[in-house]
Amino acid sequence: MITLKHVAQFINGTVIGDENLIVTGMTSCDLAKEGDITFAMDGKDLERVKSSKAGCVLTSTDVENYPKTILKVKDMKLAMTMMYNAMLELMPPEKGVVHATAVIGENVKLGNNVAVGAYAVIDKGSEIGDDAKIGPHCYIGKNVRIGKGTRLFAKVTVYDNTVIGNRGVIHAGVVIGADGFGFIPQGGKIYKVPQMGQVMIGDNVEIGANACIDRGTFANTIIGDNVKIDNLVQIAHNVKVERNVMIAALTGIAGSCTIGEGTLLGGMVGVSDHVSVGKNVKAGAKTGIHNDVEDNKIVFGYPSREASEARKLHGLLSLIIRNERKVKKLLREESLE
Amino acid sequence: MITLKHVAQFINGTVIGDENLIVTGMTSCDLAKEGDITFAMDGKDLERVKSSKAGCVLTSTDVENYPKTILKVKDMKLAMTMMYNAMLELMPPEKGVVHATAVIGENVKLGNNVAVGAYAVIDKGSEIGDDAKIGPHCYIGKNVRIGKGTRLFAKVTVYDNTVIGNRGVIHAGVVIGADGFGFIPQGGKIYKVPQMGQVMIGDNVEIGANACIDRGTFANTIIGDNVKIDNLVQIAHNVKVERNVMIAALTGIAGSCTIGEGTLLGGMVGVSDHVSVGKNVKAGAKTGIHNDVEDNKIVFGYPSREASEARKLHGLLSLIIRNERKVKKLLREESLE
Amino acid sequence: MITLKHVAQFINGTVIGDENLIVTGMTSCDLAKEGDITFAMDGKDLERVKSSKAGCVLTSTDVENYPKTILKVKDMKLAMTMMYNAMLELMPPEKGVVHATAVIGENVKLGNNVAVGAYAVIDKGSEIGDDAKIGPHCYIGKNVRIGKGTRLFAKVTVYDNTVIGNRGVIHAGVVIGADGFGFIPQGGKIYKVPQMGQVMIGDNVEIGANACIDRGTFANTIIGDNVKIDNLVQIAHNVKVERNVMIAALTGIAGSCTIGEGTLLGGMVGVSDHVSVGKNVKAGAKTGIHNDVEDNKIVFGYPSREASEARKLHGLLSLIIRNERKVKKLLREESLE
Repeated sequence: MITLKHVAQFINGTVIGDENLIVTGMTSCDLAKEGDITFAMDGKDLERVKSSKAGCVLTSTDVENYPKTILKVKDMKLAMTMMYNAMLELMPPEKGVVHATAVIGENVKLGNNVAVGAYAVIDKGSEIGDDAKIGPHCYIGKNVRIGKGTRLFAKVTVYDNTVIGNRGVIHAGVVIGADGFGFIPQGGKIYKVPQMGQVMIGDNVEIGANACIDRGTFANTIIGDNVKIDNLVQIAHNVKVERNVMIAALTGIAGSCTIGEGTLLGGMVGVSDHVSVGKNVKAGAKTGIHNDVEDNKIVFGYPSREASEARKLHGLLSLIIRNERKVKKLLREESLE
Repeated sequence: MITLKHVAQFINGTVIGDENLIVTGMTSCDLAKEGDITFAMDGKDLERVKSSKAGCVLTSTDVENYPKTILKVKDMKLAMTMMYNAMLELMPPEKGVVHATAVIGENVKLGNNVAVGAYAVIDKGSEIGDDAKIGPHCYIGKNVRIGKGTRLFAKVTVYDNTVIGNRGVIHAGVVIGADGFGFIPQGGKIYKVPQMGQVMIGDNVEIGANACIDRGTFANTIIGDNVKIDNLVQIAHNVKVERNVMIAALTGIAGSCTIGEGTLLGGMVGVSDHVSVGKNVKAGAKTGIHNDVEDNKIVFGYPSREASEARKLHGLLSLIIRNERKVKKLLREESLE
Repeated sequence: MITLKHVAQFINGTVIGDENLIVTGMTSCDLAKEGDITFAMDGKDLERVKSSKAGCVLTSTDVENYPKTILKVKDMKLAMTMMYNAMLELMPPEKGVVHATAVIGENVKLGNNVAVGAYAVIDKGSEIGDDAKIGPHCYIGKNVRIGKGTRLFAKVTVYDNTVIGNRGVIHAGVVIGADGFGFIPQGGKIYKVPQMGQVMIGDNVEIGANACIDRGTFANTIIGDNVKIDNLVQIAHNVKVERNVMIAALTGIAGSCTIGEGTLLGGMVGVSDHVSVGKNVKAGAKTGIHNDVEDNKIVFGYPSREASEARKLHGLLSLIIRNERKVKKLLREESLE
C-alpha cells in the first residue's frame, strides 16, 4: 500500500492535507475514484476537480481553502511523469488472467501472473515472461520470447522466432517480424529473397500503434534498449537501431541502416537503405536522409542538409522569390516566361 | 418500401420505364439482383448491363429502345452520391445480430438492433448505440461510448474511455486511443509521460483503414463532426481537428495541433507539433507545415509556402537549372566544380 | 523427397560431401534441424555452424576439412533466393488444417489442403483455392475469391467481392477493399461517394504488413501479376498498378493513377491523383510526383524532376548557400536581412 507521503517524496512535492491517504492510482478528473490522484493544470481544472471523486489533486497552481488534499509541485508534466513511473514500479501488478478463449499452443511457457486476453493465440514453443500481458486478438508465432512485464495491447502480431525484452509496451496493430522487402528481378521474373533472420528487441522499448518492424534477411533486425517508436513507423530488414533512439510517427528506415545511440528522428523522416546515422543526431520532421550523418549533427530538409544550412537556404529561396524579375534579368531569360 | 419514383425525386432524375419498381439497393452490374439499381458510365457499360439481373440502370448517356428501366441523370457521380446517402436514410437498417462468439463484458449496454461480429470483444462498462455495427475481431475497451448507427468494420481497436459519435464509419485496422508519444529523457533514462486523456470523436466521422488517433496526454484529442480521415493517417495526442476537415492518406499531425474548420490536407502532409492551421486552408500533397497557417490560405511545399509562391519558386529553380553555367559564373565558383 | 544433389543443380552449386542428403528445408544456423541447409556468409559463420544441427551449409567462402557437407556457390544472395524459390515449388505443401475455432460461412468453398488459422472468419460465398493458407484472426468478407497457394498471415482483412490471384503472399494487418476516400461537400454537408467497385489482384503478388488497397468507386482497383508492395503502402481507389511493379514502404498512390509495368517506386513516394506514371520508371525515395511521368524516366525530388536535373539543382543550391553574401548583393537586398 502506497501513501500520498510516499508518492510526494518520489516527485519532490508538498502535501497540503492528508498525507496518509492510500493511493490507488492516477487518472483524469472524470474517471477518478476515491483513492486516485487527479491533476489540475489551472484554476478552471481545480473547480472541476472539486466535484470529482478524486482523493487528491496534483497542481502547480496556488490555491487556498481547497476542499481536497493537494499535492503541490513545480513542473506538472515532470511530476506526473515521475509519479507514473514510480507507480509502475511500486504498485503490485494487476492479477494476470488467461482468458478461457485464449489458444495456447504446445510447449508454450507462461511465466507467473501472465495475462492473456480473449481470442489471443500463442503458438508452439513460445515463452512469455512473468507479469507480461498479451492483449486480446494478439497472435504470437512459434518460438517467440517475450520478456518480463512487457505489455502487448490488442491485435499485435509477432512472427516466429522474434525476441522481445522486458518491460516493453507494444500498442495495437503492431506487426513484428514480417518478411523484409527483398526481390531479385531476373529473366522477366521477380524472385523473392528469403527472409530468414529474426527481430531482436531490447528492454523498455515502446512501439506505437500499427508500426512495423521486419525480420532480417540473413542476419537480424535489432532494436536496442529504451528505444521509443511512434505509430505507423516502418523499420526494414537488417536495420540496427541503437539504444535510447526516439522515432516519431510515419518515419521509414530502409534496409540495413544503423541509427546511432540517442538519436531523435522527427515524424515522416525517411532514411535510405544502407545509410548510417550517427549518435545523438536530430533530424527534423520530414527530413529525407540519403547519405551518412555524423554524430551530433542536426539535419533537416530533403535532401537533408545541416539545419543551419537548411535555414540559410530557406531564407535565400524566399529572397529569390521576392526578386523574381531581377533573377530572370540576371539570367537573361525574362523573355522566355 | 422504396419505389424508383421515390429515388428519382431524391436525385432529380427522370425514369424511363417502370417507376413503381421496388428498389432493394444499388450495386455494380456484376453483383446486381432484381431490385437493384446499377449504373452505366457509357455505351459499353449499357451493353453489359443488358445481361445483368439489375432492375434499373442509372446513366447520363442517351439511349433508345433499352430493354431495362432507365433512371436518367445529368451528373453520374453526384446522382450516385445522393442516391447512396438517401438510401442510407430511407432503407430500414439490416437486422443486427450478435454473433455467438462475441465476448460481451460486464455492464455493457447494447442498444436496439446492434450487430456484433464474430470474435469481437466489448469490455466492461461500454455502451453501443442503436443500429451500430461492431465488426468481427473488433476490440472495444472499457467504458467506451459508441453512437447510434456507427459502423466499425473488422479489427478496429478502441482503447478505454474513448467516445465516438453517431453515424460514423470506421474501417478495418483503425486504432483509436493508443498512448501518445511523450517521453522525458533525464539522467540517462527515458521516462514515459502518462497519457491520461481521452479521444472524443463527433458525429458523421469517417476514418480510413489502419489510421491511428492517439489519446490526449492530460486533456483530450478531439475530432469534430463530419471530419473525414483517410487510410494510414496519424493524429497525435492533444490534437484538435475541427468540423468538416478532410485529411488524405498517410498524413501525420503531430501533438497539440489545431486544424481549423473546413480545411483540406492532401496526402502525406506533415504538420509539426503545436502548429495551428486555420479554417478553410488547403494544403497540397506532401506539404510540410512547420508554422501556423492563416485562414483560407492555399499552401504547398516543404517547408510550406503559399501555393503561388511555391509555384513561382518551382519556375525559378527550373530557370536556375537551365542556366547552370551562368549561375556558376555569377557566383564566380565555376572552377570549383 | 529432395536430395542435396537436386538442390545443387537448381542453384548451380557444388556439393562437397554427401550429395544424397535428404533436404527438409533451409533456415538460419540457430534454428536448423538435421535435414536443413543453413548458410555462412564468412569464416565466423562457418565456425558457428559447426556446432549447429544443420546437415549442410551453403557458402561462397573457401574452406578445407570442414566437418559438415558444404554446398559451394558464387553469389550467396542469388543462390539462397533461387534455392528458396525452388523449394517452394519442389516441396510438398504443408498439410492444411482448418482450426476448430475458424468460422466458415454458408456456401464457402475451401479447396484441397487449405489451412485456416485459429479464430479466422470466412464469410458467405467465398472461395479459397487449393493449398492456400488463411492465417489466424483473418477476416475474409463475402464472395471473395482467393487463388491457389496464396498465403495470408495473421489479421488480414479482405472486404466483400475482392479477387486475389494465385501464389500471393499477404502479410499481417493488410486491409484490402476498404472504401476509397471520396466525398462531395455540398450545402454545408459532406456526402460520401459510394465505393462500389472491387479490388482485383493478380498472381504472385506480395503485400507488406499493414498496407492498404482501397476498392474502386464505380470501376475496380487493379493490381497486376508479380507486383510487390512493401509495408504501410496506401493504394487508393481506381488505381491500376501494372505487372512487375515494385513499391517500397510508406508510399502513397492517390486515386485513379496508373503505374506502368516494371516501374520501381522508392519508399515514401507520393503520386497525386489521376497521374500516369510510365513503364520502367524509377522514382527515388520520398519523390513527390504531381504530373505524368514518361516511360523509362528516373525521377527524384519534390516536386519531382528528372534525377539528373534534381542532382544539378542540389549542387546549385549548395553553391548558393556557400555564396550567401554574394547572392544577397546580386539581388541588392542585403540590407533587408
